Amino acid sequence: MLDAVLPLVASPIVFRDALIVTQDASRRVERGDVRVDGGRFTSVGGRAEPEGAEVIDAKGFALLPGFINTHGHVAMTLLRGIADDRELSGFLETLFAVDARRTESDVQAGALAGIAEMLLSGTTAFLDLYYFEDAVARACERLGIRGFLGWAVLDPELTTQSGKPLDNARGFIDRWARHDRVTPLVAPQGVYVCGQETWLGAKALAEEKRTLCHFHLSETRKEVHDHEAKTGARPPVWLDEIGFLGPSMVAAHAVWMSKREVEILAKRQVGVAHCPSSNLKLATGGIAPVVEMRAAGVHVGLGTDSAASNNSLSMLREMHIAGLTQKNQRWDASALKAQELLDLATVEGAQLLGRANDLGSIEVGKQADLSMVRLDHPTLLPARPEALVSHLAYSASEEAIDSVFVAGECLVRHRALVKVPWQTVRLEAEAAARPLWERP
Amino acid sequence: MLDAVLPLVASPIVFRDALIVTQDASRRVERGDVRVDGGRFTSVGGRAEPEGAEVIDAKGFALLPGFINTHGHVAMTLLRGIADDRELSGFLETLFAVDARRTESDVQAGALAGIAEMLLSGTTAFLDLYYFEDAVARACERLGIRGFLGWAVLDPELTTQSGKPLDNARGFIDRWARHDRVTPLVAPQGVYVCGQETWLGAKALAEEKRTLCHFHLSETRKEVHDHEAKTGARPPVWLDEIGFLGPSMVAAHAVWMSKREVEILAKRQVGVAHCPSSNLKLATGGIAPVVEMRAAGVHVGLGTDSAASNNSLSMLREMHIAGLTQKNQRWDASALKAQELLDLATVEGAQLLGRANDLGSIEVGKQADLSMVRLDHPTLLPARPEALVSHLAYSASEEAIDSVFVAGECLVRHRALVKVPWQTVRLEAEAAARPLWERP
Repeated sequence: MLDAVLPLVASPIVFRDALIVTQDASRRVERGDVRVDGGRFTSVGGRAEPEGAEVIDAKGFALLPGFINTHGHVAMTLLRGIADDRELSGFLETLFAVDARRTESDVQAGALAGIAEMLLSGTTAFLDLYYFEDAVARACERLGIRGFLGWAVLDPELTTQSGKPLDNARGFIDRWARHDRVTPLVAPQGVYVCGQETWLGAKALAEEKRTLCHFHLSETRKEVHDHEAKTGARPPVWLDEIGFLGPSMVAAHAVWMSKREVEILAKRQVGVAHCPSSNLKLATGGIAPVVEMRAAGVHVGLGTDSAASNNSLSMLREMHIAGLTQKNQRWDASALKAQELLDLATVEGAQLLGRANDLGSIEVGKQADLSMVRLDHPTLLPARPEALVSHLAYSASEEAIDSVFVAGECLVRHRALVKVPWQTVRLEAEAAARPLWERP
Repeated sequence: MLDAVLPLVASPIVFRDALIVTQDASRRVERGDVRVDGGRFTSVGGRAEPEGAEVIDAKGFALLPGFINTHGHVAMTLLRGIADDRELSGFLETLFAVDARRTESDVQAGALAGIAEMLLSGTTAFLDLYYFEDAVARACERLGIRGFLGWAVLDPELTTQSGKPLDNARGFIDRWARHDRVTPLVAPQGVYVCGQETWLGAKALAEEKRTLCHFHLSETRKEVHDHEAKTGARPPVWLDEIGFLGPSMVAAHAVWMSKREVEILAKRQVGVAHCPSSNLKLATGGIAPVVEMRAAGVHVGLGTDSAASNNSLSMLREMHIAGLTQKNQRWDASALKAQELLDLATVEGAQLLGRANDLGSIEVGKQADLSMVRLDHPTLLPARPEALVSHLAYSASEEAIDSVFVAGECLVRHRALVKVPWQTVRLEAEAAARPLWERP
């Protein structure tokens, strides 16, 4: 099947009379027009010039910045439900066994399905950690989402990749440098499979190629305690001591963190992808100290992790669950308010990706990555502007996401994928899942 | 507007070649036909006789027993988002102020909207606690859902109801006795507004009229500690001492429970409606001891509570969140497995309603309350039979619920309400919400 060719510049669009959830510095929600030219917002609020543009009547819709999912393994969508109700070590045992016999082709089929699920729930950019990332990149091209794709690196003697992981990552980064929708990066998997040389090699590669560096950190007590037993230091302290930590890094999970470790992340400008559903489902026991991290100046985004451990890829659900767990854990119903949850899912996610000036909000000059959300959906009733952010954080169903745009290009229209029909994606994915499930 | 007249007997239907999630004693999931005559299942599995029936091609669908939502205040759907990010006492302050000036007409409009949201997410029966329940009953009639409707009773000097709450409850029960879809009951609100006389009066009324009795119990630490300070006993102990507790009772929340209290509920055969999302959002702090309650023999169902505190009415989300919180709280990923979550939402709910022989599963002789779930939806991929229960518990989006039936009557067809158009429900609800939001 031919990969779709992306248009260089999307046509101008005017969204007429929408309820705009700008997520700008003042977090204003206001009714007005939004104009997009060349894939970027050129006018936000008030009345926009319709000249030369497709005019979309948006009176019944909220316009919302696209969600940014800051941690996942999208190709594992084929493995949803394969190892449920098991803790991380048992879960990984099953998953690693399946991973070892995956092919580039089933990775692409799984990535397409996961990307479809994300687009249909309003996500326009995601951060991924896996191997065969060329296949994931091609899936991004086919469906049009923004992929920030991290090639997993680990110690060469522990990998099932052919060749050395760091060399594989380098090749992947070179092949996809300066791509419109795909941003390659390097992704050391975690302290349990990466020694000092791998960590520092990954950092050097990221610095040389000026990419992000994405990794798992302090997800479970076992990980933390095993590493402390081995090295005498807990993972963030050790990573700092070896000179690894620094800016342009996103650590996933960060559940088991001391106050000192939070301060280290803040000082080194390491961002955190908070993945509450996955952490809870794997019974990691703790709750990531999101409030403390934010108070210390750590940028925190939200991640769904994979469909094998979440099992949803919906950022709407993730906002809800992130809010619920912080409130209950702290016995403080005002912890992580609705507005903050929406921030995590949008502007903070953009900050983690190093794209705060370009993504995450509806502001003039930024990329036109946005959703049209139906205000007449049952889960947004009553559709009062003062309750809109609450509805998005706590109740909106994916079905309310009517249409989704990336760089002004319509990728979902009235709940249907535009570039590849869902039924095509689905049949490819079901066929690719079969051998993974039937030969356990 | 005229209330719709319910047909006495729905036409025969054969669902052909479905994946049937029976929820029978063996919990079998199997492909086959299901036949419905006179609103009840007459054949489940294998090949059904099509004679005289409408035949529905169900090859691409799972058939699932309708969800039973065992605690809520459906008319409060108009108040979704009105008092977010506040703990229970502050939340109730706002809510009680609004409640005091509600009318029977806005209660009906709110109930219609909430019932629509429930039907569209696969819920076919719900247990409610509120006042003006005649209006809620009429909303049930209009949309066709099964309503188990509890008239809220509290001490006469504390109520905003006109007349004595117990008399109002009696009148309501008399007006709706032996109705097809509406089952009236009595609902003492909680120890903070009910004295001994009210509790025992409610019990006497329930016994006289042979109805269920539904009440709030040990939702917050404050409730428990205040009651202990006042009476010397924690709520379940005190309610047992005064002779209130007994069978045919459903206690909502039961978050702050000692082992002894769990044993009391088991001994008195009191069921529990577990409402994790609401508890977490109001930062009640604890996590209801669901595993211990079930181990002790207490029947536990799931409840969304109202849209003012959840803020969703989706039982799909509630299953997911119930599973996540039990696992994490206990550091045991196998706590409340997917199958158990589905049990809470179906057969256990039926048990709480005293209708275990009639509702909650797809078995010959039971009421044909069921959903058709799209197997080709992105959130159910891969659609493998062995993963289906996991997908329902952990990932399925409401959009996957294609059609919903109560007593064999189609109430939702291809995501649209059958009996009253959603846009009619919505416009009534938005109009009714306006004065409640604009005169705070």
